[in-house]
Amino acid sequence: MYSGKAATLLDLQSIAIGDLVEVSVDREGPKGEHESGQLVLRGAVMGPFGPSPDSSIVLKLESGYNFSMDVDRVRSMKVMGRAETMRVQRARSGEGPPSLPPVTLIGTGGTIASFVDHRTGAVCPVSSPDDLLYLLPGLGNVCHLSVRLPLSKLSEDMDPDDWMVMAREVVQAFGAGARGVVIAHGTDTLALSAAALSFVLRDLPGPVILTGSQRSSDRPSSDSFSNLFHALELAARSDLGEVCVLMHATISDGISAVHRGTRVRKMHTSRRDAFRSINSEVLGTVSEKGIQLVGPYRRADPSRVPYIDGTFSKEVLLLNAQVTLDPNLLEEIGMAKRALVIAGTGLGHVSSSLVPVLKGLVSVGRPVVMASSCINGRVNMKVYSTGRDLLEAGVLEAGDMTPETALVKTMWCMGKIGPEGAIVERFRDLFCSDVAGEVEPRSVHSAFPEPSADEGRGDRTD
Amino acid sequence: MYSGKAATLLDLQSIAIGDLVEVSVDREGPKGEHESGQLVLRGAVMGPFGPSPDSSIVLKLESGYNFSMDVDRVRSMKVMGRAETMRVQRARSGEGPPSLPPVTLIGTGGTIASFVDHRTGAVCPVSSPDDLLYLLPGLGNVCHLSVRLPLSKLSEDMDPDDWMVMAREVVQAFGAGARGVVIAHGTDTLALSAAALSFVLRDLPGPVILTGSQRSSDRPSSDSFSNLFHALELAARSDLGEVCVLMHATISDGISAVHRGTRVRKMHTSRRDAFRSINSEVLGTVSEKGIQLVGPYRRADPSRVPYIDGTFSKEVLLLNAQVTLDPNLLEEIGMAKRALVIAGTGLGHVSSSLVPVLKGLVSVGRPVVMASSCINGRVNMKVYSTGRDLLEAGVLEAGDMTPETALVKTMWCMGKIGPEGAIVERFRDLFCSDVAGEVEPRSVHSAFPEPSADEGRGDRTD
Repeated sequence: MYSGKAATLLDLQSIAIGDLVEVSVDREGPKGEHESGQLVLRGAVMGPFGPSPDSSIVLKLESGYNFSMDVDRVRSMKVMGRAETMRVQRARSGEGPPSLPPVTLIGTGGTIASFVDHRTGAVCPVSSPDDLLYLLPGLGNVCHLSVRLPLSKLSEDMDPDDWMVMAREVVQAFGAGARGVVIAHGTDTLALSAAALSFVLRDLPGPVILTGSQRSSDRPSSDSFSNLFHALELAARSDLGEVCVLMHATISDGISAVHRGTRVRKMHTSRRDAFRSINSEVLGTVSEKGIQLVGPYRRADPSRVPYIDGTFSKEVLLLNAQVTLDPNLLEEIGMAKRALVIAGTGLGHVSSSLVPVLKGLVSVGRPVVMASSCINGRVNMKVYSTGRDLLEAGVLEAGDMTPETALVKTMWCMGKIGPEGAIVERFRDLFCSDVAGEVEPRSVHSAFPEPSADEGRGDRTD
Repeated sequence: MYSGKAATLLDLQSIAIGDLVEVSVDREGPKGEHESGQLVLRGAVMGPFGPSPDSSIVLKLESGYNFSMDVDRVRSMKVMGRAETMRVQRARSGEGPPSLPPVTLIGTGGTIASFVDHRTGAVCPVSSPDDLLYLLPGLGNVCHLSVRLPLSKLSEDMDPDDWMVMAREVVQAFGAGARGVVIAHGTDTLALSAAALSFVLRDLPGPVILTGSQRSSDRPSSDSFSNLFHALELAARSDLGEVCVLMHATISDGISAVHRGTRVRKMHTSRRDAFRSINSEVLGTVSEKGIQLVGPYRRADPSRVPYIDGTFSKEVLLLNAQVTLDPNLLEEIGMAKRALVIAGTGLGHVSSSLVPVLKGLVSVGRPVVMASSCINGRVNMKVYSTGRDLLEAGVLEAGDMTPETALVKTMWCMGKIGPEGAIVERFRDLFCSDVAGEVEPRSVHSAFPEPSADEGRGDRTD
């Protein structure tokens, strides 16, 4: 909460977090007297994330940007609306207006559900559902919101057990009457979790939307509010019946892209438009024009009863088949796991010195899947002699899946197969069918972006 | 060579491989009589790659496409020029006209220097310099060409010893008076070889251009002729003084892109425009408008005497830090090698369970480098707690290098460091300086392509 002068200013008009206000602020402090005059701004009062919660107040402007203002520079503050706060509070107590569709927001940690600890400068995950709502005022008027916080982790620490926690939460949420579910997730492994949920969740009655944030919510350039807002809209109003990812479509807040959960990959370390559909078109967009889905996608059907199909084996490794992977090490690694996914070169190749090792692994019941380190395009092992040797060795093509989706699918297939019996044969049957739109029998178009020159300048790595 | 009726037709006018001819061909065979009339085509006579070298002749059309015609359908064949053949032959015997700049073409195998074996359907590498020239008529008028074939390998089989073979060939070629060098290379590991040569070749007096082909030269859609033609032009006429890669800039033959050797990556399994500069603009283009370089690049200087600086350690591995990499396995792999490059998540993270293992590896003299599996963007381990823990453990940031360039640089640095002494400290000094434009201290712009929808339709995976 705000304290000191900031709290006093807010208390004067009983302004609470989430209230819409219009403020008039001095343009410059004493050091910039050449530029006097006042700035009039309108926005929702956010939680205190600035360095001095006792003397500055943060507004979420309509542009989506955060604005931190020194209390001493505030000339006037007018309340423009309290509805949002009311709705958030009603949603918290489960008393939202029945006209709004019920959506469950599942917080799991990550930047989108983090705040900056002003003592250490570190980004810390929120620890309660209320904290999450507190970070994001104004979301209560999108839907009747229930918040859950089953996990509070940076996403690089997420493991298959966490995927199962999320899957159970989704099933529970629909069971409790949710129309849609939003999962706030760290971006590092968001695509992996989306793929995992796509494989393990069956008969979804409505949308399951994962979203994250590339910039923490205390920063002016944060994408957390815009992504969460659009994700909640999508969960509340779309007829999607599958697991999707919603993230910025461009570097500004206006448009979000909707990606299939098995087809998305984080393709940039820091940009807000880092997430891209691979070998597949985006399913649609969310913007001020509303939700525009171009499909094809699986439609929602409220009569379906969702359930969890299977689990994930951790005994699978994704390996780069690069120049220095020697046969002995490959054999050691292969025998230490139950299955391997190789990110091969080009159409799906490895050094020919590795082929006999992979053949040996398959022959002792360890499935081997070949994806491509090119990421875009389709594995095709029928073109060159190395590929044909790999097929002959029993290595399976990952088609047009990303290496990461091939990894998750292999983990899911191995989760369904016990340690005994005709493992390789049963794996092949499971792996070579399309479970969740993750693979197409033939690539008709490839959605490979044109090289471009300058548009990155607007979104520096900072 | 052609035989049977095909040879007879060519011999009538003493037409040799590489001669420019204009032919008039029946549009349809007996089965398609509804469309009669004749087709007039102009192109260079290529070697016999069709299924019937005794009854069909292949032309390289001006569009770059190959056209195979049944001899029985040829109504007339007119010789339009013999100059190219003469030049190729003069070049072969070292007697090219002195006005053309001397360029050495180094064949190493791969699709660009392969032909289809009609008995097995397999793609086979050429086995002599003459075979290579024979595949590609018409190149002799770009430059005074010397051809070498030190290797004949599919590129997935290339290893650091092969990189050194290529490096020595380049030094020899400049020593023998070449103005520039072109290396024809398989595309799977072309970018890796380009990075390796960038690190190991010093004081280059002129351009070293690697090029390859995504479609073999017997196919109508082959890019081998266009790429090799533009690469030879670049080697013959540009003032580049560094190692570059030239490949198709778009899916058609018109424009080739010039990439810095340390900044390029194969980003699609099959498209002709698969090669992209990562975190860097392309250096320029070659098209019918000529060579257009936008730099900045290292300029050629014929007075320089090139030499080989260092070699490559094979005791380095590139590892994906994905969800199932457990601490025990990481420690085993780390101890089996002398250094590790990790493709981490996001800004350069791994599961926090792996941080103590990496710290242990560094403490026993095994350098660890962190790149990002996002490929685009910059590693920054100062933002989140996991990253700061990794920095504290002594893990080094790969900056804005691709994981593969970070691997090659690490191999090169370890090649310079013996097995004794303060390995980690010496590695840090070597690794953290810019050797060949592979890393910038700060990313000013990121050259990250916009997502796009449909342009892939023109270049199917076939």
